[in-house]
Amino acid sequence: MSEIRNLALACRDAAQVMFALDSDTKRKLLRDMADALEAQCDIILAANAHDLQEAHAKGIQGAMLDRLKLDQPRVAGIATAVREIAALPDPVGLVTRRETRPNGLEVERVRIPLGVIAMIYEARPNVTADAAALCLMAGNAVILRGGSEAIHSNVAIANVLRDVLEHHDIPSAALTLIEDLRRETMVELLQLSDIVDLAIPRGGEGLIRFVAEHARVPVIKHYKGVCHLFVDASADEALALNLLVDGKTSRPGVCNALETLLIHRDIAASFLPQAVRALEERGVELRGCERSRAIAPGMRAATDDDYAAEFLDLILAVRVVDDLGAGIGHIQRFGSDHTEVIVTRDHEAARRFIQAIRSAVVMVNASSRFSDGGELGLGAEIGISTTRLHAYGPMGAEALTVERFVVRGEGQTRHPASRLEGG
Amino acid sequence: MSEIRNLALACRDAAQVMFALDSDTKRKLLRDMADALEAQCDIILAANAHDLQEAHAKGIQGAMLDRLKLDQPRVAGIATAVREIAALPDPVGLVTRRETRPNGLEVERVRIPLGVIAMIYEARPNVTADAAALCLMAGNAVILRGGSEAIHSNVAIANVLRDVLEHHDIPSAALTLIEDLRRETMVELLQLSDIVDLAIPRGGEGLIRFVAEHARVPVIKHYKGVCHLFVDASADEALALNLLVDGKTSRPGVCNALETLLIHRDIAASFLPQAVRALEERGVELRGCERSRAIAPGMRAATDDDYAAEFLDLILAVRVVDDLGAGIGHIQRFGSDHTEVIVTRDHEAARRFIQAIRSAVVMVNASSRFSDGGELGLGAEIGISTTRLHAYGPMGAEALTVERFVVRGEGQTRHPASRLEGG
Repeated sequence: MSEIRNLALACRDAAQVMFALDSDTKRKLLRDMADALEAQCDIILAANAHDLQEAHAKGIQGAMLDRLKLDQPRVAGIATAVREIAALPDPVGLVTRRETRPNGLEVERVRIPLGVIAMIYEARPNVTADAAALCLMAGNAVILRGGSEAIHSNVAIANVLRDVLEHHDIPSAALTLIEDLRRETMVELLQLSDIVDLAIPRGGEGLIRFVAEHARVPVIKHYKGVCHLFVDASADEALALNLLVDGKTSRPGVCNALETLLIHRDIAASFLPQAVRALEERGVELRGCERSRAIAPGMRAATDDDYAAEFLDLILAVRVVDDLGAGIGHIQRFGSDHTEVIVTRDHEAARRFIQAIRSAVVMVNASSRFSDGGELGLGAEIGISTTRLHAYGPMGAEALTVERFVVRGEGQTRHPASRLEGG
Repeated sequence: MSEIRNLALACRDAAQVMFALDSDTKRKLLRDMADALEAQCDIILAANAHDLQEAHAKGIQGAMLDRLKLDQPRVAGIATAVREIAALPDPVGLVTRRETRPNGLEVERVRIPLGVIAMIYEARPNVTADAAALCLMAGNAVILRGGSEAIHSNVAIANVLRDVLEHHDIPSAALTLIEDLRRETMVELLQLSDIVDLAIPRGGEGLIRFVAEHARVPVIKHYKGVCHLFVDASADEALALNLLVDGKTSRPGVCNALETLLIHRDIAASFLPQAVRALEERGVELRGCERSRAIAPGMRAATDDDYAAEFLDLILAVRVVDDLGAGIGHIQRFGSDHTEVIVTRDHEAARRFIQAIRSAVVMVNASSRFSDGGELGLGAEIGISTTRLHAYGPMGAEALTVERFVVRGEGQTRHPASRLEGG
């Protein structure tokens, strides 16, 4: 049997142990993990120095090198994040529905862990601790497959956490880090459909497409976020301007940043010049349709590719539309099911927008930048799903569980003739 | 572009229309569909006669021919099932959680339809109406791909339903029946990952494995049901006997029938002879472990294959185990995550069983035959999921929806510096 299959089978056995843990045990486990990360900071930093050295030798620099780098405050930050996860409500065991059937059966819907979760991610070593902690808190076992750039840091962090598992008499396979980073090994992992309950890829579009293409296990994808702001005819213009600036400029490199501004034609002549001024002052490049360029001639012409793009940069596509319906039509055509915002003072327009838009997060008069597990009250986030199944939008601990049925009876049978006259 | 892709794209457009329908419109639509099925019964029966003739020519007979056959009462039964679905609670629009964040944002979790559901099924023509009605009631569009034996019946039923869609000004593509039944066409359908939100295969294990192997869209599988009854040392023996007879003999060919009896050794000598007598009187063949054969010597020896088998027949595997832990271990090794039952008077044993068993349905002192959407209160059932994601166990209308986020604000921005001094 292959190495990866053996590792995964051991992880599945460990998932049985995780399945039965109570909340207090899991909280204590995670707090001990946080303490251990801080206590063994030096070992982690030494491993990280090794990664940084190799990255340097490969010519990696700038933001990518920064994402890879750990120091004492960052390790403390990772430990703090693990402690925060330990303090979250435990979704496991939650009874979401309870009903007594006419025949007296008591039927409950109860949340249980998914089982074995495979996390596939790229450079950031903090994901190793974050994702592991969230999976374990929800009673799962986890297989981590990070990027090669962070392999030494990931191994060091995983070893610290695995030691804590063993101290708690939980098989360390409950947190399995794949050190063999060949693509064919990842493909093998993604095809273990009898072992792995869910794969979550986290990283660039290329990684996610690769996982989706090769997986035979269920995958929850987070593709790009092409987020729209629709400024309705009835919008409060100052409010719309705040949301536009926040959505585009507060952190342009993330998935909940705005990529396209849609403006109702009745407000375009008034709103667009203000928008152009505010955005250009902040270094944003605008690309517009013909009608928007008639109002703000400095703008470059936008193509359909611009409307479909996740720029992740200080670039914004702009379109003036005839009405709410045309705005909705644009989003239906170019959107990525992530997050869309309407700015309006008209309740009926808000209702129509919500009813027509199928994206994971739909907002009225709020910044798209709030489309995030922490901001929406999940406490922690393992990703943002654009897969319209199981979880849609920001995913917290609860999204790592599923509801099942617990039924209690007093000997009820389905067929009356099955009832005997005693023993 | 291929034919199937075009059909699927039209179905996706129709899903946008379905998405926005209110409950009353959907209920009226389904009731009109039920009426139309009855009114056009003759056309459906003529098409069915065509299928029966071809089946006869192919030498199909017995239970399979019976599954295919429609008559006036059966068509009326299909119409009644559609009316029952029309009367179900509408899961769409259900607000499952509501929270006001510290910054004043109102965050709701609201159920929305999945979008486009592909149903892949085998011979029964009633599934064409049942599955379509349940998908539409949950606001989805549906692509149906039934078996070749029922193709004329399926086309006739689908045409009746599609006409009703058009009468309601809903694109008939919301119910798309695939008439090209080549395997490669099914594979193409299963790979339309930008269009199809979920595939549900319903049929034999071969079909389900084929779908799981070839799909690039999410699949919810229902593999076999190897259901266990564990008779604890503290069991009420008469009650256990009732559940055993009901579970094994009331309908042995279905997935929630019992396949294996596990008996605590302390009760085996008393319980097993009664069980053997009751089951053999009903024509059940028993296959047992050494310890059970020491008590009931007539039994054939059971192999590991017997313990893994879904017999779908009057055959039962039997094992005497040392204790509850050994019973749980057997289920963890041989179970199929479907339904398991414990018979006990010991609350602690019941708690341990529930806490250790990860199956979709776990029961205390009730018949496994209740593991069914109707019996557990879902009203109607589109399948029983053994995939531990999205839905686990019997799936009703709610399992054809997903929660998303609706956020309402008053201009909140994430970054304070985004706030401007007005226009």
